[in-house]
Amino acid sequence: MSLDQDRLDEVLARVDAQLPDSLDRLMDLLRIPSISTDPAFAGDCNRAADWLVDELTAIGFEASKRPTPKHPMVVAHSEGTGPHLLFYGHYDVQPVDPLNLWDRDPFDPQLEDTPAGKVIRGRGSADDKGQLMTFVEACRAWKAVTGTLPGRLTIFFEGEEESGSPSLVPFMKENAEELKADIALICDTGMFGDTPAIVTQLRGLLGQEVILTGADKDLHSGSFGGIAINPIRVLADIIAGLHDENGRITLPGFYDGVPELSDEMRAQWQRLAFDSADFLGQVGLSVPAGETDRTPLEMIWSRPTCEVNGISGGYEGAGFKTVLPSKASAKISFRLVGTQDPNKIETAFQDYVRSRLPADVKVEFKDHSASPASQVEISNPAFEKARRALSDEWEIPAAYIGAGGSIPIAGYFQNILHTDPMLIGFGKDDDQIHSPNEKYDLESYHKGIRSWVRILSALT
Amino acid sequence: MSLDQDRLDEVLARVDAQLPDSLDRLMDLLRIPSISTDPAFAGDCNRAADWLVDELTAIGFEASKRPTPKHPMVVAHSEGTGPHLLFYGHYDVQPVDPLNLWDRDPFDPQLEDTPAGKVIRGRGSADDKGQLMTFVEACRAWKAVTGTLPGRLTIFFEGEEESGSPSLVPFMKENAEELKADIALICDTGMFGDTPAIVTQLRGLLGQEVILTGADKDLHSGSFGGIAINPIRVLADIIAGLHDENGRITLPGFYDGVPELSDEMRAQWQRLAFDSADFLGQVGLSVPAGETDRTPLEMIWSRPTCEVNGISGGYEGAGFKTVLPSKASAKISFRLVGTQDPNKIETAFQDYVRSRLPADVKVEFKDHSASPASQVEISNPAFEKARRALSDEWEIPAAYIGAGGSIPIAGYFQNILHTDPMLIGFGKDDDQIHSPNEKYDLESYHKGIRSWVRILSALT
Repeated sequence: MSLDQDRLDEVLARVDAQLPDSLDRLMDLLRIPSISTDPAFAGDCNRAADWLVDELTAIGFEASKRPTPKHPMVVAHSEGTGPHLLFYGHYDVQPVDPLNLWDRDPFDPQLEDTPAGKVIRGRGSADDKGQLMTFVEACRAWKAVTGTLPGRLTIFFEGEEESGSPSLVPFMKENAEELKADIALICDTGMFGDTPAIVTQLRGLLGQEVILTGADKDLHSGSFGGIAINPIRVLADIIAGLHDENGRITLPGFYDGVPELSDEMRAQWQRLAFDSADFLGQVGLSVPAGETDRTPLEMIWSRPTCEVNGISGGYEGAGFKTVLPSKASAKISFRLVGTQDPNKIETAFQDYVRSRLPADVKVEFKDHSASPASQVEISNPAFEKARRALSDEWEIPAAYIGAGGSIPIAGYFQNILHTDPMLIGFGKDDDQIHSPNEKYDLESYHKGIRSWVRILSALT
Repeated sequence: MSLDQDRLDEVLARVDAQLPDSLDRLMDLLRIPSISTDPAFAGDCNRAADWLVDELTAIGFEASKRPTPKHPMVVAHSEGTGPHLLFYGHYDVQPVDPLNLWDRDPFDPQLEDTPAGKVIRGRGSADDKGQLMTFVEACRAWKAVTGTLPGRLTIFFEGEEESGSPSLVPFMKENAEELKADIALICDTGMFGDTPAIVTQLRGLLGQEVILTGADKDLHSGSFGGIAINPIRVLADIIAGLHDENGRITLPGFYDGVPELSDEMRAQWQRLAFDSADFLGQVGLSVPAGETDRTPLEMIWSRPTCEVNGISGGYEGAGFKTVLPSKASAKISFRLVGTQDPNKIETAFQDYVRSRLPADVKVEFKDHSASPASQVEISNPAFEKARRALSDEWEIPAAYIGAGGSIPIAGYFQNILHTDPMLIGFGKDDDQIHSPNEKYDLESYHKGIRSWVRILSALT
C-alpha cells in the first residue's frame, strides 16, 4: 500500500541507517562466482540461488529455488493486496577474462574511494547483483518500518541471463499464471548520465559462433604454406565482407523491419544533448565508427549492428609458432531493432558464410541467442507514477530513453505474460559491465534502494 | 678417416645392435620439455643442453655449454685430421598447444606400433631431437668400433631455433674461427616421400605480430556496439586485403627478387612426380589453395607466401560474451624466396597495416624473425659423395630437392662462416612437426644413424 509522507520518510531513513549492512549483504553475494556461461561454475550459480532464497525468506517472502535443466530460478511471493508487481533481476554474472586486466580479484569485492566517489568494485556489482539487491533491500527496510512487505509482490531472479537464458521461455510458459502481473519491474539497465531513466526501447540480439575447419590437423606453414587453405584467412574474408564501406551490414534482407526514428522520438533524443565525444572519450575513443549517415544516438539505440565479440585460431601464446592452423572460429553477434526477425537473419548469415567457403573448408555454427528488439508501451499510468518517484529521489526529471543492449525478458513479459515491462536501473556508463574492473557506484546502490521505496509506494 | 668396407659394416652392425639403447637415450632427451619460445621452460632448455654436453663428453667429445642472453648453445669438438665437418641441430622444440588434440602427453614419448611401422611419438621426436641424435649415435657407434671419433668434427646445437634464433648470428660471429669448417651438415629437413634427399633450396621467413587497440578497455557490445570501433573487424579487413582473388600477395614490391624456376630445375621437379592430391590428402585436404597460376611444387618450394599463424581477440572461452574488445592481434608470417629482402617486406607490411587503420585504432608490431631465402651451391664434391652414401643406405637414388620451410642457419653458414651447408634429414611428410602427435619413424632414426656412418666415412 502507498505510504504517507512521514511513513515514507521513515522507511527512507531506515535505508540510510542500514546502508552498511545492506552493503555487507551485497558483498556476500558478489563473492559467489556465479558465471553462468561456464559449466565449471554451475555449483556457484546454485549457491547464489540458495543465498537469495535464504535472504528473501528472512525478510518474509515465501521463496523457493526452482530447478531448470541448467541453473535454477528463484521465485518469491509476498501476501498482499493491490496491484500485482513482478520484479526481475539476474544473479548470474559474466566471465572475468582477461583476468590480468583486473586490478583485484573479481570475486573479492571491495568498496573503493575514487575521485568521483565511492564505488563497489567486483564482477556482478552493476550487472546485475547490485541492481537486484536494491529492490531486496528496499523491501527489507519497508518491512522493518511497517511490519509488512509492500503489497502483492513476486520476485523472479534468473541465473542464465549472461548465457542466453535457455530455460527462461519454457519456465515462464509453465508458470505463466504464477508470474503474470500488472506490471513487471526489470532492474538491469542504467541511468542516462546523471539523469534517472526508464528504458522504453531495447535492441534484440542474435549470437552465432562460426567454427571453420580446413586441414584435419595443424600444419607446418613451411611445409604446407602456399598450398594448404588457411581457415584464419577464410574467416577474415568472411568478417571483412559483413560491412560495406559505409558501415552498413551486407547480408541480404538484413534491414527489413528496421524503422526510421519517429519525429517525436528524434526530437526527444535531441533534447538529451548527448555528447558523443564525451561518451567515446571515457573509453579512449573519439570518432563514431558506425554507419556514416547516422547520428551517434541512433548508432547505439535504434540501428542494428554486427559485432565480432571474439576470434580465435592457430597459435596464440607467447612468441611465435609457424603453424598453419586447422581451425579458426569467431563469435559474432547482431543487435536487432524494430521488427527484424532473428531467425531470418540467422539464415541469411549462415547462407552468407557458406557462400564464401572455398573448397576443403567446413563450417559449424553454434547458436547462442536469438531475441527480437522490443518497444515498450508507456500508456499504463504506472509509468508516469514511477517516473515522478524517480524524479523525486534524484531531484532531476527522469527521462524515457532507448538502450543499445538486449534484455530479451522485456519482450517475453510482453508476449508470454502479457505484462507491461518497466525497465528501471541505476547503472552508469562507466560501470565497465562485461569488462575487467566492473563497479557499481555506492550512490547507485544507495539511491537505487531509496528509489524502489518511492516507486513501491507510488505503485501499490 | 674413411673406413674400408669391412670396418664400415662393423660400425653399421654396431648401430643395429645398439638401437634399443640409442632409442632409450633419445627418449630421455624427449622427456625434457625444452620449449624455447615460452619463458616458463627456460630451465628445461638449459637442462636439455646439459644432457647433450654430458652425452657428447661421454663418447669422447670436448663438449661445453655456451651461454647466450637466452638459451645456451652446445659446442663440441673432436681431435682429428682431414676435412673439418660441422654438424648442426637444435635441441629446442615447438610449443604443444592445443594440448587436447594430443593422444598422449607430448613429453612422455613412446614407441608405438602403427599400420605403417613403428614410430617414436612425442614433441621434438622429428623436429629436431630425433634428427640430431642420429648423428650423435653414429659417432658413438664409430667410436665403439674404431676406438676414435670420425675425424675432425665440430658439433653445434642451438636452443632457440623455434623462437627465431635471436642469439645465433652474434654467437656465430663471435666464434667464427672456431666454427668455420669445410662443410656444414644440417640435420633438420626431411626425405622426399621415401626418397632420401639433400635440400638445396630453402624459403626465408619474416614473422610479424600485429596488435591493434581500439578502446582502452573491453566494452559491452550493447552499450557501445555501432558507435565504437571494433579492432577484430579492422584486423579482419587487414588480413583479407593481403591477398588478391588469384592468391597473390598485394604488398607493393613484394615480388621483387622472386625468380622464375629455371628450366633445368623445373624438369627435375617434374621427374619427382609429386602428387598434390596425395600430399594434401594426408591432412584431409584436396585442392591446392595457393596462387592460381602455379604448380603445387612451386607453391611449397619456390613461391613466397603469407600466412596467418594465429589470431586472437575478445572472448574466446566457452559460451558467449557480448563484449566489444579493446584489442585484437595476429601472428603473420611470410615465406620468402630468391632475393626477396625481409627488411623491405617488413616495411611494406607495416606501411600497409598503418594505411588501413581507421581513426582511434593504434598498432604495435613485434618482430619475430627475418631471414632471406637460401640457395645452396652443390659444386663442392662432398655433395655427390654424400648423395651416393645416402643412396647406398636407402637403396634408392637420393635427390636434390627444394623445401618450403625456413632454416636460416643455412644462409648464416654461407654468409658468416663461408661454409657450404649441406641439408640432410630423415623426417617424413606425415611427422606432424609443429602439430599435435608429432612422431619420427623408427626407420628414420635407425637408417638415419646408419646414413651418417656412411656419410662420415665418405667425407672424412
